[in-house]
Amino acid sequence: MTTPLTWLQRNAGQAREELFDFLRIPSISARSEHKTDVTRASEWLATRLRAAGLTAGIFETKGHPVVLGEWRGAGPSKPTYLVYGHYDVQPVEPLELWSSPPFEPTVRDGRIYARGSVDDKGQLYLHVKALQAHLETHGHLPVNVIVLAEGEEEIGSENLSGFVAEHASRLACDGVIISDSAMFAPGLPSILFSLRGLAYLQVDVEGPKSDLHSGSYGGAVVNPATALARIIASLHDDARRVAVPGFYDQVVAWDDSVREQIRALPFSEEEFRAEAGSPALGGEAGYSTLERNWTRPTLEVNGLLSGYTGEGAKTVLPSRAMAKISCRLVPDQSPDEIAALVTEHVRRVAPPEVTVTVRSLHNGRPWRATLEGPLFEAGKRALERAFGKAPVLTGEGGSIPVVGDFQRILGAPVLLMGFGLPGENAHAPDEWMSVENFEKGMAAAAMLWEELVTRDS
Amino acid sequence: MTTPLTWLQRNAGQAREELFDFLRIPSISARSEHKTDVTRASEWLATRLRAAGLTAGIFETKGHPVVLGEWRGAGPSKPTYLVYGHYDVQPVEPLELWSSPPFEPTVRDGRIYARGSVDDKGQLYLHVKALQAHLETHGHLPVNVIVLAEGEEEIGSENLSGFVAEHASRLACDGVIISDSAMFAPGLPSILFSLRGLAYLQVDVEGPKSDLHSGSYGGAVVNPATALARIIASLHDDARRVAVPGFYDQVVAWDDSVREQIRALPFSEEEFRAEAGSPALGGEAGYSTLERNWTRPTLEVNGLLSGYTGEGAKTVLPSRAMAKISCRLVPDQSPDEIAALVTEHVRRVAPPEVTVTVRSLHNGRPWRATLEGPLFEAGKRALERAFGKAPVLTGEGGSIPVVGDFQRILGAPVLLMGFGLPGENAHAPDEWMSVENFEKGMAAAAMLWEELVTRDS
Repeated sequence: MTTPLTWLQRNAGQAREELFDFLRIPSISARSEHKTDVTRASEWLATRLRAAGLTAGIFETKGHPVVLGEWRGAGPSKPTYLVYGHYDVQPVEPLELWSSPPFEPTVRDGRIYARGSVDDKGQLYLHVKALQAHLETHGHLPVNVIVLAEGEEEIGSENLSGFVAEHASRLACDGVIISDSAMFAPGLPSILFSLRGLAYLQVDVEGPKSDLHSGSYGGAVVNPATALARIIASLHDDARRVAVPGFYDQVVAWDDSVREQIRALPFSEEEFRAEAGSPALGGEAGYSTLERNWTRPTLEVNGLLSGYTGEGAKTVLPSRAMAKISCRLVPDQSPDEIAALVTEHVRRVAPPEVTVTVRSLHNGRPWRATLEGPLFEAGKRALERAFGKAPVLTGEGGSIPVVGDFQRILGAPVLLMGFGLPGENAHAPDEWMSVENFEKGMAAAAMLWEELVTRDS
Repeated sequence: MTTPLTWLQRNAGQAREELFDFLRIPSISARSEHKTDVTRASEWLATRLRAAGLTAGIFETKGHPVVLGEWRGAGPSKPTYLVYGHYDVQPVEPLELWSSPPFEPTVRDGRIYARGSVDDKGQLYLHVKALQAHLETHGHLPVNVIVLAEGEEEIGSENLSGFVAEHASRLACDGVIISDSAMFAPGLPSILFSLRGLAYLQVDVEGPKSDLHSGSYGGAVVNPATALARIIASLHDDARRVAVPGFYDQVVAWDDSVREQIRALPFSEEEFRAEAGSPALGGEAGYSTLERNWTRPTLEVNGLLSGYTGEGAKTVLPSRAMAKISCRLVPDQSPDEIAALVTEHVRRVAPPEVTVTVRSLHNGRPWRATLEGPLFEAGKRALERAFGKAPVLTGEGGSIPVVGDFQRILGAPVLLMGFGLPGENAHAPDEWMSVENFEKGMAAAAMLWEELVTRDS
């Protein structure tokens, strides 16, 4: 008897060929010269959703279109789940660092090398094939399914939350499934329990109206670069805690079981250090590296610019100095509130002889999973069946703002089960996805529908 | 009867025409495409020295040539004085900010506008004409005279001290006269009593081997930009004193008479602030603006660079951060010693999780005039005669390293009597020299020779 799993095994080669077609479309959302490629990728995806047995439509936005696939054959009495992914990809520069062309998918050492392989075309398409496996073998799915794929994830998902809000009743669902992250280690399936939020600011310090001669004015005019450095230095204390008053007020402590789970992960500080290429690790006192990275908020300088930065010596007293500063946030910190606290602190410590401007450039909310409920339980079982090992819970230091948006707008829990791997080069040259994870990912996605109905029935 | 002064008055128009020829040569020493122009300027000057009645030669160096004019007709029993100047000029960019082309000298509102007008062709050539005035009218000078003009002042005078050391016996003299500075105010002749020295350093902080994702690594890897800001913040205390241990140990206090003279100068803090275009002035506690600028050492940040500095938000944890830092020094601080102290301090405060490198880029000694002796007294009298007002003593926050070199290598006192004016745009578009100061400068230079012999006889 053909089951979704045997169907997937038999059609694995075909699935990979189709994925390769998807990967060959250079759908770089950031580049206007690739606009038609982005459109083409949306059309290709809609076609494949229809071939899988769903209905599919393309919805224009102010930017790139949203692809919406639907199968509602389970009927209104059954739950509905939404799979989210994105069909756009990152730019490919520097091209010379790719071992094979970014849009010519190549398998080497069990890895599919191509831009978008793991982020996110491969992880999106494995869900399409899992759905097809059910529809081809059983003719139906146990629940109603929506597939929502956007083309602007790599440029900030600017139109997505508007689209979700506008179509909230159509997108109403009992849970959201996203595969756009990585497993903690090879063979170790993972469910994300948190994402950090973001409050990104630019600080501009202005002193004299133009660069001055550091001899003729030095010592008598306050130097904006020195002032900026002193402002930045005031943002942390000696224990590397953020020293902005109120910064930690809304941080919710994790319960001990999460800290214990984190400690139980097979993690090597030395490997992490070597991967970062840093002389030594370091951060907020009292926390391990993974805790610092997943469960604690940060304040980082992302950029500095002032005065003369070329070769050699130029004796300039700079007119201005700029810093880009961003905070990674954890529940329940609010990006707006943190931006306001940092702004207030910077203004308070800035010397009166310079003019300081703080602008908010980008905000994103932190997110924390509900580690219970039917979707979470089904995900755990599906992953364990596919990988032969119970999934671990992992955090993520980065931000995926849409996750919080889904949870907030649709009021549905989100399950983040990703099939990437450490070192996958998601935004870098030689991006790859493991062939094994693409195939086990299809299997896990297919079993998820079974596990959901097992649970549901 | 024709005197040097009446000769200069009668030939003032001719002198200005000749200066205009000099100014038309774009002798930009920093630009290799102007190398032949620099050579042409050296030849033009040698020709004019011969026309004035001196012998003149051109000496090749590893860079641009040195022009040496000599008149030794006073004989070995008489003293010898050396006039130093430079015939090279600064680059002219940004060209669009010039009201008239930089190498087409134009008189507007009593000012000669041209690159090099005040820095230093005009101030060098007024000495040539003063010498010619004596030789044309008396046929001789009361002392032996050497004119030494270099073509590399604007690029650091790299070959000058070597030239002076190599020709030390030929250049042996009883005093050096330099006109390459400005008067404190219009109508107020000035003698410089000090120049600050320079110790210019570059600090490089290296963390991870490449830029990291600030989400995936932020909080767990020490940020080089933050580390650099904290290092810079440690360089001053809250009273804006330099906080590097030992920094002030070699600073010689000025006697009260100099502080009183500085306080007596017609100086408006508000005008200085407006000229700097700074929201407010500020500096080391306990000193006035002129004292901070002339008599106190400083430590300034000249440049900062790290991470992402373009538009918008990029969530990078920078791999490295760079600062250019320079100290202006006062007697008897040693540039080498100060560079070593700052380097030691930076290494001591740097966190162990980053690698910090400090490189010395440029050094220059501070200088202080001997405010007595025949040259100083003759200069005072000559300036008073030419301008009808006793000169004031002023300091200079900038550095002219060759001054210290002359004093050290030749063992001769240096007289700095400059004829520029505030706002002269020496290194900027619309550089100018006042016609009045060019003419009174020629007169003062001519009278200097008379005053020297009055004193000497």
